[in-house]
Amino acid sequence: MSETAVPAIPKGLEGIVAASTKMSHVDGLAGELIIGGYRLDEIAGPATFEEIAFVLWNLATGKEANLPRRAEFGTLQQELAQTRPIPDAALRVIQAARHAPPMDALRMATAMMSLDDPAPKDESPAANYRRAKGLTARTPTIIAAHDRLRRGLDPITPDPQLDRAANFLYMLTGTPPMAQAAHALDTYWTTVIDHGMNASTFTARVIASTQSDMVSAVTGAIGALKGPLHGGAPGPVMDMLQEIKTIDRAEEWVRQAIAHGDRMMGFGHRVYKVRDPRADVLSRAARELAESGGGDKALYELAIGVEQIILRALEEVKPGRNLKTNVEFFTALVLQSVGLTSDQFSATFAAGRVAGWTAHVLEQQSENRLIRPASEYIGPRGLRYVPMNER
Amino acid sequence: MSETAVPAIPKGLEGIVAASTKMSHVDGLAGELIIGGYRLDEIAGPATFEEIAFVLWNLATGKEANLPRRAEFGTLQQELAQTRPIPDAALRVIQAARHAPPMDALRMATAMMSLDDPAPKDESPAANYRRAKGLTARTPTIIAAHDRLRRGLDPITPDPQLDRAANFLYMLTGTPPMAQAAHALDTYWTTVIDHGMNASTFTARVIASTQSDMVSAVTGAIGALKGPLHGGAPGPVMDMLQEIKTIDRAEEWVRQAIAHGDRMMGFGHRVYKVRDPRADVLSRAARELAESGGGDKALYELAIGVEQIILRALEEVKPGRNLKTNVEFFTALVLQSVGLTSDQFSATFAAGRVAGWTAHVLEQQSENRLIRPASEYIGPRGLRYVPMNER
Repeated sequence: MSETAVPAIPKGLEGIVAASTKMSHVDGLAGELIIGGYRLDEIAGPATFEEIAFVLWNLATGKEANLPRRAEFGTLQQELAQTRPIPDAALRVIQAARHAPPMDALRMATAMMSLDDPAPKDESPAANYRRAKGLTARTPTIIAAHDRLRRGLDPITPDPQLDRAANFLYMLTGTPPMAQAAHALDTYWTTVIDHGMNASTFTARVIASTQSDMVSAVTGAIGALKGPLHGGAPGPVMDMLQEIKTIDRAEEWVRQAIAHGDRMMGFGHRVYKVRDPRADVLSRAARELAESGGGDKALYELAIGVEQIILRALEEVKPGRNLKTNVEFFTALVLQSVGLTSDQFSATFAAGRVAGWTAHVLEQQSENRLIRPASEYIGPRGLRYVPMNER
Repeated sequence: MSETAVPAIPKGLEGIVAASTKMSHVDGLAGELIIGGYRLDEIAGPATFEEIAFVLWNLATGKEANLPRRAEFGTLQQELAQTRPIPDAALRVIQAARHAPPMDALRMATAMMSLDDPAPKDESPAANYRRAKGLTARTPTIIAAHDRLRRGLDPITPDPQLDRAANFLYMLTGTPPMAQAAHALDTYWTTVIDHGMNASTFTARVIASTQSDMVSAVTGAIGALKGPLHGGAPGPVMDMLQEIKTIDRAEEWVRQAIAHGDRMMGFGHRVYKVRDPRADVLSRAARELAESGGGDKALYELAIGVEQIILRALEEVKPGRNLKTNVEFFTALVLQSVGLTSDQFSATFAAGRVAGWTAHVLEQQSENRLIRPASEYIGPRGLRYVPMNER
C-alpha cells in the first residue's frame, strides 16, 4: 500500500467549473459582484428584492434581464402575497420544533412545502416557476411563525398589503415596521440573493440535476447553508459586540483577543481580496437606518467604533494582510437593528438566498445534465467473508 | 459575445474526482463492485445488511473493515432496535402526507429526525455515529408508517425481537414475514448499500462538508435519490411486466415496443459495460425466494421468460451493443415479491442506501474540506438600473 501514489486532486473541487450560469458572478480580485447583469452597488438600495428575484427567474428561464414593468411587478407581488400563508400541517411541525434552532425548523417546514402543491406531478417550466415564487414567498412566513411559537405567541397571518420585508417584520412583532427598517432588510436580502456557486446553491443544483423536485432541492440547500463553513455566520459578530458592550472597553478587548490568537469575526474573506462589495452596501444601509431613527443608533456607533479599532489593530499585527471588514460584520448590524436575534441570522440569510436557489434550479432544469462526479477508492480490497462464529 | 469562446468543461463533473473514499468502488469495465473491501458476491447472501453497515461505519471513522464479533453485533442490533420507533410529531407529519408519494413523506419525516436528538449540539464522532445508526434504523419505520396510514390503518410499532428486514415487512402487514422474504429484502439492501460517488451520496457529502448536521445531509440525499435520473427507477420494470401479463404475449409486446423505439426498462447501464454484479446477486435472491414458496412464483417465471425474450430481441436489433439485464430488473422482481408496490421501490432503495449515506457523512466529517466548485458566468454585464416609471 505504501507504494501506491495518491494522485493530486483539487480538494473540495476548488476552481473546478461545475456549471455555467447567468445568475451571478463573483470577481474576488476586483471586489465585484454581478447579480443578473447588474453590479450590486447599482441595484442594492434603489431596487427591491422582488425586482431582482424577477430578473433572476427570467434569466434562468431564457428571458432577458429586464426589470419588471409596473404591471408585471403588480402581478408578481399579488402572486407572492397570495402564496405567503403556509399550510396548517407546516405550522404544526413548526410548533413541534419550536425549541429547535430556526434553521432546523426551516428545514422541516420547507420539506413539507409540496403538500399543498396544486399540481404536484407537473414538472413544466411554468409549474416550477410557480414553485420558485411560492418557496421564496413562504420562507419568511416559516421563520416568523417559529419565532412567535417559541415565544408562546400565536403566528401572525401575512398581510397582503405589505411587501415581503415589511411583512416579515410585521409577522415577528404584530406591528407594521418603520419603512426604514423594512428597506434595510430588503437591501440585505438583495445583497445576499445570489453569490456564484456557493455550497448551498451547488447542493440545490445537484439535487435538481437528478430531475428531482424544487422542494427537495431547496430543502437540501437549507441543509448546506446551515453549516458553519458555508460562510454565512454573522451571529458571532453580534456576540463579540455584546461582549465588548461599550466603546471605551473596545481597545483593550480587541488587543487581548488578538494576543490570544482569536480570529476577529467579520474581517477578511476567502474570495474577496479587496473590500467585499456587499460590505459597502450594507454599511450604508446600516448607517441610513441608524440615522433615520429606525434602528439602534447606540449599537451602530459601537459597531463603527469597534470596526476602526479592529482594522487598526489588524494592520499593526498583520501588516500587508489587508484584512477588510466583510459582509458578516454589517449583516449582523443590519439584522440586529431591525429586531432579529443572532440565532435567526442564518435563517434570514436563507430567506434572501432562496430566490437565488430557486433561480439556479430553474436554470439547471432548463438545460439539465446529471451532476455526478467520480471518487477515488482508497479502501481495502479482496477481503473474505468470515462467518460469525469464526470471528 | 459571439467571439467569446466558452471553455470546454466536463459536463456534470463526469470523471472529476470529488472525494477519496473507503466505502465502495465501482469498476464498470470489470463488472465489479467492492463494498468496504468485500466483493459484492462475497457478502450478498451470507452477510446481513447490518453487518455490512457496521463495516462501512467503522471504515468511515478510521477503523478496520472487520466484520462485527458476536458481542459487537448484539450491541449494534440492540441499539438499532431501540432507535426504530419514531417520534409522534413525525407520525403526524406522515399522516398529513399520507396521500403524497412515499419519497415525499420520507423527505418530510427524515427532516424531523433531529427533534428527539438527546444531544443536538454534540458534533463529536460518537454522537454522529449514533445519528448514523438512528437514521438507518428509522428509515423503514417511516416508509411502513406511511404505507399503513395511506391505507387507513394504524402504524405498527417495530418489534424489538425482529431484525431490520423482518421488521419492515412486519410493520407493513402486521404479520412476521417468512424468513425467505426477509432474507431476500436484506440481500437487496446489502446490494444497494453503497455505490461510489452517486448523486445522492455526493449531495450528502456536499452538505456535510459545510459542517452541517447529519439529518440535513441525509434529507438532502433523499431529495437527490428522488430524481428519475438518479438511476434507481425499478418501478417501470414492474409496470412493463404487469402490462405484458402472460408469457405468451411477451414476444409480440417486446417486438412492438422495440419497433416503436421504446427503451426496454431494466436493460443496459451507464457505468457497467459487462453484466452489473448486482443483477447476478439479485437474480439469485429472486430465484431462491420463488423456489422457497415465499415469493410470487408466477411473477418470477414471467420475469425470467420476458428477460430471455428481451435479451434475444435486443441482440437482434442492436447487435454488439451487449445490453445486459441490470439491477433494476431484478430489484423490481425482489421488491414486488416481498409485497411492496412499485411506488415504494425508491423509498425502499433509500432504506438501504441510508447506511452508505451516513457512512459517507462520517467519512467526510473525519477529514473535512468544504466542497465548493466554481461556476462560469455566461450572463449579461454592465446593466443599469432603470426606475420603475421609466421602464
